[in-house]
Amino acid sequence: MGHSSGLHNQTAGSVRRATIIGGSAIGASWAALFAANDVRVILYDPDPEAPGRTMALIESAMPALAKLGYATSGLTQRILFESDLAAAVTETDLVQECGPERVDFKRPIWAGVEAAAPTHALLLSSSSSIPASTQNTCMADRTRLLVGHPFDRPHLIPLVEVVPSATTDPAIVTRALAFYRGIGKVALELKQEIRGFIADRLRAALFRECMYLLRENVATMRDIDTVVTSSLGIGLAATGPFMTCHIGGGVGGMAHFIQQFGKGRMEKLWSTFGDIRFDDEMCRLLIEQAEAFYSDASIATLDAIRDEKQAAIVNALDGNRERAAA
Amino acid sequence: MGHSSGLHNQTAGSVRRATIIGGSAIGASWAALFAANDVRVILYDPDPEAPGRTMALIESAMPALAKLGYATSGLTQRILFESDLAAAVTETDLVQECGPERVDFKRPIWAGVEAAAPTHALLLSSSSSIPASTQNTCMADRTRLLVGHPFDRPHLIPLVEVVPSATTDPAIVTRALAFYRGIGKVALELKQEIRGFIADRLRAALFRECMYLLRENVATMRDIDTVVTSSLGIGLAATGPFMTCHIGGGVGGMAHFIQQFGKGRMEKLWSTFGDIRFDDEMCRLLIEQAEAFYSDASIATLDAIRDEKQAAIVNALDGNRERAAA
Repeated sequence: MGHSSGLHNQTAGSVRRATIIGGSAIGASWAALFAANDVRVILYDPDPEAPGRTMALIESAMPALAKLGYATSGLTQRILFESDLAAAVTETDLVQECGPERVDFKRPIWAGVEAAAPTHALLLSSSSSIPASTQNTCMADRTRLLVGHPFDRPHLIPLVEVVPSATTDPAIVTRALAFYRGIGKVALELKQEIRGFIADRLRAALFRECMYLLRENVATMRDIDTVVTSSLGIGLAATGPFMTCHIGGGVGGMAHFIQQFGKGRMEKLWSTFGDIRFDDEMCRLLIEQAEAFYSDASIATLDAIRDEKQAAIVNALDGNRERAAA
Repeated sequence: MGHSSGLHNQTAGSVRRATIIGGSAIGASWAALFAANDVRVILYDPDPEAPGRTMALIESAMPALAKLGYATSGLTQRILFESDLAAAVTETDLVQECGPERVDFKRPIWAGVEAAAPTHALLLSSSSSIPASTQNTCMADRTRLLVGHPFDRPHLIPLVEVVPSATTDPAIVTRALAFYRGIGKVALELKQEIRGFIADRLRAALFRECMYLLRENVATMRDIDTVVTSSLGIGLAATGPFMTCHIGGGVGGMAHFIQQFGKGRMEKLWSTFGDIRFDDEMCRLLIEQAEAFYSDASIATLDAIRDEKQAAIVNALDGNRERAAA
């Protein structure tokens, strides 16, 4: 069942109330998505200016949510702000932490949450770089915490990387996966706490070669972006890297792909990759070309264009999934 | 103007007749696309079994062409087969070479084409790995040849990488770009004949890290594919790698992205990338997991699923472009 089903309010399961920690862009995106799924949201942020700023971010998520088939009217009435941590978690079913990416922020927060939240509450961190095993060191019960890392803004992009630590209770991992899937996410469990998890590592691998091509003046920043949007990106969004190669191997599948394109040709390409860093010259080039090609529109305008394109792709693939399942 | 305009037959410009060299999957895809744009196609292949095999490939391109808005009835009547090279090019406006990726095939072919084709004919190679400067060594006039490399099957994926050699006449490059754009392709000129051009280099960079994650048992092949189709792929298809980062930097744009995500975090990720080769253990793992996760469906079935998804994405982005232009 896709986003157009109109039955989202049945799917959050036993999670009726959720607490978001931190009114960042990611926190606001989670808040909008949870509320769109009929979950009552308490947004904890000690900053007195957080409510205004965060509500503006939540409002900016509405067009994409509407395009994905959610009823957005009344949505913001299910979101309350709270500046006291204990009060924010005392009656919650789930905590989604979206605070600063600093160990000295996350460790005491989890101690505070643990002291005040019900024992059944799911404790989830949105962190992209600090694993649960590093965050949980001040907790009495280290079986409860895990990472639920959204790639980009979770109200729009389907993926959530679910990354337990070695001490996380597997039953809690199962409940977290069920919750995320219930609200329409593609939630996948990683087998280890590898740095960057999966999606950020792959983005970094691709970006490094993009930087090399820019530095070597093979094409401009805009042309490299256009190459990707009109070729590789479409293939990756449709079938992913491995299945694409398996199909590309023809009737011989992956084995034929390896023989024809992998062993000789791909290895030879790897040997021509250059050393790349964010040194002064590289940073200057990146900023200069972003200015040259992308400064005509404001970031807010580009943001809206991106959201509309991403929602169109998600819907295109969702419609496809629905037809395939029918 | 998008693919749904129904005016494709106006757009190939002065190219009324085109010759495809080689009835491969790529040759068949070009033939179908050219014919869909009302160009009369002569398909040269000396193999007596080529017509039957190639026509089957052309037929398999029809569903995607129809989904992209082309009228496909009568299309195959614009495609003729010819087993004599001189006869195939003597009255052509354009040659698109799609033969084996071997220098000893391409060099004599171009000498033969040059001897028999009209002087106004565009001479284009689909090669992904042999640049024009390597292919043109037996030609009397080295200003004519350039590469027009489609990423995957050109009837479906928009990109054509246009790669002249140092001796290619810039006026001929301009004509080639205009032709490809006229038939709806996203044609981009590369500034150098770099190995793998752009898209294949980026695919290889991404695939290397996918292989590493598989080898390190961070996730299964199917889960890594799902991560990409539900996150990175959507972002790349929508706005490409650089614009995505520029937007991700918020109001500070690319400069802020570099400070927050590039310098420290991305460089740290790069330092954790492992050494990867297509060695026996890696190949075994790739083939084993492709078998385990993807052998339930035939390659033909997966192929059709992929085509439908890719066409849905192309249409989603095209519709978006049309709205943006309106």
